[in-house]
Amino acid sequence: MVSRVNLTGKEEKMDHKDWVRLELRKLGRSLGFRYTPPQEIEGRLAKIRTAMRESAMEGLLVVQKMNLYYLSGTTQDGFLFIPLEGKPLLMIKRELERARVESPIREVVGLRSIREMPSLIQAHHGRLAQSLGLELDILPVKDYFKFQEFFPGLPFMDATSILREARKIKSLFEIDLMRQAGEIGKKVYQEARRVLKEGMTEIEFSGLLEAVAKRYGHEGLLRVRSLNYEAYTWHVLSGLTGGIVSQSDSPMGGLGLSPAFPVGASAKVMKAHEPILVDFGTCYHGYQADETRMFSVGKMEQKFIDAYKACKEIHDAVLENARPGEDCETIFLGTLQLAEKLGYRDSYLGPPGLQTRFVGHGIGLELGEPPFLAHGHSYPLEEGMTFAVEPKIVFPGEGSVGIENTVVVTAGGYEVLTPVEQEIFQV
Amino acid sequence: MVSRVNLTGKEEKMDHKDWVRLELRKLGRSLGFRYTPPQEIEGRLAKIRTAMRESAMEGLLVVQKMNLYYLSGTTQDGFLFIPLEGKPLLMIKRELERARVESPIREVVGLRSIREMPSLIQAHHGRLAQSLGLELDILPVKDYFKFQEFFPGLPFMDATSILREARKIKSLFEIDLMRQAGEIGKKVYQEARRVLKEGMTEIEFSGLLEAVAKRYGHEGLLRVRSLNYEAYTWHVLSGLTGGIVSQSDSPMGGLGLSPAFPVGASAKVMKAHEPILVDFGTCYHGYQADETRMFSVGKMEQKFIDAYKACKEIHDAVLENARPGEDCETIFLGTLQLAEKLGYRDSYLGPPGLQTRFVGHGIGLELGEPPFLAHGHSYPLEEGMTFAVEPKIVFPGEGSVGIENTVVVTAGGYEVLTPVEQEIFQV
Repeated sequence: MVSRVNLTGKEEKMDHKDWVRLELRKLGRSLGFRYTPPQEIEGRLAKIRTAMRESAMEGLLVVQKMNLYYLSGTTQDGFLFIPLEGKPLLMIKRELERARVESPIREVVGLRSIREMPSLIQAHHGRLAQSLGLELDILPVKDYFKFQEFFPGLPFMDATSILREARKIKSLFEIDLMRQAGEIGKKVYQEARRVLKEGMTEIEFSGLLEAVAKRYGHEGLLRVRSLNYEAYTWHVLSGLTGGIVSQSDSPMGGLGLSPAFPVGASAKVMKAHEPILVDFGTCYHGYQADETRMFSVGKMEQKFIDAYKACKEIHDAVLENARPGEDCETIFLGTLQLAEKLGYRDSYLGPPGLQTRFVGHGIGLELGEPPFLAHGHSYPLEEGMTFAVEPKIVFPGEGSVGIENTVVVTAGGYEVLTPVEQEIFQV
Repeated sequence: MVSRVNLTGKEEKMDHKDWVRLELRKLGRSLGFRYTPPQEIEGRLAKIRTAMRESAMEGLLVVQKMNLYYLSGTTQDGFLFIPLEGKPLLMIKRELERARVESPIREVVGLRSIREMPSLIQAHHGRLAQSLGLELDILPVKDYFKFQEFFPGLPFMDATSILREARKIKSLFEIDLMRQAGEIGKKVYQEARRVLKEGMTEIEFSGLLEAVAKRYGHEGLLRVRSLNYEAYTWHVLSGLTGGIVSQSDSPMGGLGLSPAFPVGASAKVMKAHEPILVDFGTCYHGYQADETRMFSVGKMEQKFIDAYKACKEIHDAVLENARPGEDCETIFLGTLQLAEKLGYRDSYLGPPGLQTRFVGHGIGLELGEPPFLAHGHSYPLEEGMTFAVEPKIVFPGEGSVGIENTVVVTAGGYEVLTPVEQEIFQV
């Protein structure tokens, strides 16, 4: 039992459930929680349903955590059933009361086992759907087989692209959360100047930057929709580690701390005059902002300063074309031409043979959402898309440089969501 | 091109590939990398093949990153084909040369697209296998369909339990890496006393502890084999946030920073005399150690001190039974009886209605490996198993206490891998 002082000033006893119901939302709000508003969820559901109708998908079962958050406002452990017509049903395996507090979805029920799901849907919706969409891009085979067993005879459809397409255009509410993530990043980069000292290791510097970021509300984990790729914040590479490629699909992966984590900051000591690349993503209420700046202790060698200027020129050229209607692949191909013109054909976006084929990636609840400014991605930019643009130049055995900002496409152009100054941070 | 000073002191030019081949391993070693030895990989492959033979599985295709690391020593982006007889084949999508440096597997080839895989296997092995094991517990459906397309007619089998069973008994090499993870944890808890100040927020304290841990080699990410559960290091809960349950399957999840990350440390200010629960996992070369200690600023309220003593008594009782042959479920049920005897029936392992049904979980490359000291897990402990034991007591609206250590089962009993003192850390 929990004690609580009621409106008349008397202490009263409550059980855990009542405490969550009556107190948790207030506690969250007092500590900065921004709950997803009902009209926001309604707008997202409307987008999803339009696409479901076009695909003749009568029901959609949302399993994956970020899709669940997007469509329900909560990440409590459970599933969201969305019928084409009628109310959605949130089925929660563990903390039902907390899900009720966090989500604007009004039909929230407990779920003891996946086996119960069909009967819960039937009780709520009147019947099962004629066809059910599932997130086949990430749903494990084992779970798929379970669904086949529990929903016998029901045709499953792939809901991957419906969810992906809906999420790629951000609402004003989402853009504001990304703006806040960018504000956290700004504070981190500004304090970084005071944190960086010659003789620190990359990982020590990273850890301290993360401590700053968390103090300002950075959620620590970055998310990416992939079985094997892992996103992380501590991508700090100095001198020769900046020339090392690894598991990640990026121009340079770094050395990392071991073969089990072969990316990002390492135990290498950072030396004076080396280029120190800090690619530090931040996350606020699940929404991410990604940015890169260059640091050095003392003046950076001229070769790297020149290459940084080239990255900045490519970055600015991309943003000049960032407006609705511009083709993503064309923008990417333009940067290849510019890099070649500037003399960096063999070092732009990676070492020879390992050059990546994108200069920008969509970003939001996950890294690597559409749009991609990339080879093979010929489609137009649209208002409300958010992406990170990150031209980088890599000199194997020596180091790498780059700049990265996250922007949102607006009606007439773009807005930068990562408002840190764009010079080299020299200490 | 990269410059390198050769043995005769002359500078020579190398391309990126040669630099990786000749220099990367040395660089890694000089910064503390411990590459998995060939005999270690051979031992693991032998275990896997014994199980494959028993299941009449002629080939096994390893996709998931931690299984790949376990069986090849690298986490570079790719796949490992293990035939029942003959040499394994490592197929790498991106940094081939780095995989060659990190892995004792001798047959390493580049892979441009999954489509090429059957012909690569055929060229290497002479033919495709008659049956192919896949990790159906985590393989996405979309990838499974691709494999069906590229390996037409080939029967797939579920390799989940083969891999899980092989990994559950740790070698001396693995145990030593976990011991190192425990040593990092020890340093973190020892420095924590100097870091903790009244008036800090939970997340600020967590961030600073993480910075300490990273400085000593903690890899930052914890890993868990699940679509939706995410592991994280910053599980710091103070006073009432310790009574909040969330998405994770643990006695208390905490408030977290938002509905998108509703677990772990929050922006709540830590007050004097509150119980501060610090459940801080560390990771070294992929191997994890998990531990919990209690902190307070000034003396903790007596109620929590008493509950902590009960947790300690339950913890010690579990370890008294930690030896080969003891039944995991019986150990768990014994703790329920002891908790009841001590007067904590309704607060042991969670608030009423939300109590978890395990007091220990296996640990290694991932959290939540076998063995589980849990309801429904009736099997014996074996030498070489590693698990975390974590009795916790939760008072909703007020706070929670607990203790946690990671141990390895030895021939005659157990060894603690998290050697931090077990008192309450009062500052």
